[in-house]
Parts: sequence; C-alpha cells; structure tokens
Amino acid sequence: MNAEFVNPFLQALQNVLSMMAQMELKPGKAQLKKDEYARGDVSGIIGMVGPQIKGSFSISFEENLACEIMNKMLGELPDSINEDVCDMVGEITNMVTGGAKKTLGEKGYDFDMATPIVVSGKDHTISHKSEGSKLIMPFNHVAGKAYIEICFDKIN
Amino acid sequence: MNAEFVNPFLQALQNVLSMMAQMELKPGKAQLKKDEYARGDVSGIIGMVGPQIKGSFSISFEENLACEIMNKMLGELPDSINEDVCDMVGEITNMVTGGAKKTLGEKGYDFDMATPIVVSGKDHTISHKSEGSKLIMPFNHVAGKAYIEICFDKIN
Repeated sequence: MNAEFVNPFLQALQNVLSMMAQMELKPGKAQLKKDEYARGDVSGIIGMVGPQIKGSFSISFEENLACEIMNKMLGELPDSINEDVCDMVGEITNMVTGGAKKTLGEKGYDFDMATPIVVSGKDHTISHKSEGSKLIMPFNHVAGKAYIEICFDKIN
Repeated sequence: MNAEFVNPFLQALQNVLSMMAQMELKPGKAQLKKDEYARGDVSGIIGMVGPQIKGSFSISFEENLACEIMNKMLGELPDSINEDVCDMVGEITNMVTGGAKKTLGEKGYDFDMATPIVVSGKDHTISHKSEGSKLIMPFNHVAGKAYIEICFDKIN
C-alpha cells in the first residue's frame, strides 16, 4: 500500500477533527506489518468496495479521547461512552472515509462505502482479515490515543 | 427488511456451522427495532455494497461458544479467544456472507463484499449505523449465545 493511497485517510481524519472539534491529533509511527493491534474502547468500522479495490477502514479511540472529542464538538462532556458518543464515532468514520473517497476518486480509485458499524467495549482489539496490505497508525493527544487501520485487497 | 432478504443469512449461518462443526444453533426471536444490542466476546464484521443495496453484517459469539466451535471444527479447544479463534470467526463471516450473496444474487440482489474485520474484547457491543432497516437475531447453544445483525440501506 503506497502513501498515495494512505495519506487521504490520514489527512481526512486530521481535517475532520480540526474542523469539527478544533483538535489536533499527532500521528505516530505507521506500521505496515501486523506487530501491533488497533486497540480502543470505541471504534468505527466501514467496508469499501470498488472495481479496483476492496477493503476496510477502522478508527479506534480510547474512552477519554472519545469523550473529549464529544466535549469539543458539542460542548457536552460525557462520563463514559454512551449512545451519543457511538453516534459521533459513526459520523466521524463516515466523514473520514467520505473525505478519502473524494480524494482517491480524483486519482482514479473509485469505491463505494458500506454503512458504518460502531463497536463499544473496554480495550477491545480490531483485526482486519485480508490477504492485502494493512496499515496501522497510532495518533496521540493529551486526552488519549487513537488508532486507524486501513486494509485493501486487489489494488490494481 | 423482508424475510426474503434475511433468511439467506440465517440459513447460511446454520449451514456453515452444521457442515464445518456439526453444531446446531437454535434461532431465538428476531427483532427489527433496536431494543437490543448485539453483544459478544468476539465478532466478525463485513461490509456489503451493490447497485441496489449497501449494508453490513455482523456475527458475535460468546467466548465459550467460539472456543467450542473451534474445538468441533479443528479438534482443538482453546482456553480463551486467541488469534486462531479470531481467524476462524473471520472465515465464518466470509462464508456466511458468501452463502447469502449467492442466494440473493439468484434473486436479483447483487452485492460485493468488503474484507472482514474481527473484533475481540470481553462483552463488547456492536451497533450498525444506518438509516435503513436493522435486524438482530440471537442464537442459542448449550455452549453459549451468538447474535447476528444485518443492516441495509437503500433497498430498491
């Protein structure tokens, strides 16, 4: 998986959080091999299917960071991950994937997005099952960590 | 969401577990409204995109049931959910969705499958974020419970 393909997701995430929550997440070191699992307390997951590619995208947040994003976006700090936080994570997942879809479409990589799924549960792990390349990237913020994972099969 | 659309998933799940593990899961009461969350210790998730439909499918297992399926399929009873169990859940997710895709394709509902994702973590919940219909169905087995959830947008 090359940078041309991955960067649109990273940029879309940073754009979405900067615009919606005035927050900056600091990207850590990307890993192409699966030495590390994406891990968090709430995750948004979405499938992608196109003529050249199929794959999946996930974004996982630690509870404290998810609550702080909610606070910054809506002015309301939840005690813990509730239904509103899950809805927000679903929306962020849609917006990030939609942003990357637009950028990649302009480069000739078209895909359609499935509907997002939100997983909630203390310290769960996410594992993308695919023969293709997988990229995991941690992000740091004073409020907590986030991980994104991007996985694609059959890139022509 | 009508029975014509849901039954292929239920039948595919029962076929896969009967063939691969000689196990029968007893279907509980399906719910169309979201009074209940799909819940489990390990879940397989997959996105689906077609000209008429887009959606997502998930199957969640309690730990004990997932380990017992592993035992019946491979003759090896793990103590807890490990990487092999996660791989098996990813495979089951692929096989069930592939079976349903075949049946639905014959009825004129075509879709492509994204790559599966496996979530692992004690007692996590799954929530499909979609405007469309969502169906959740519990299954019972002496070894534990399973839940499937099917969600589709834009069925023409």
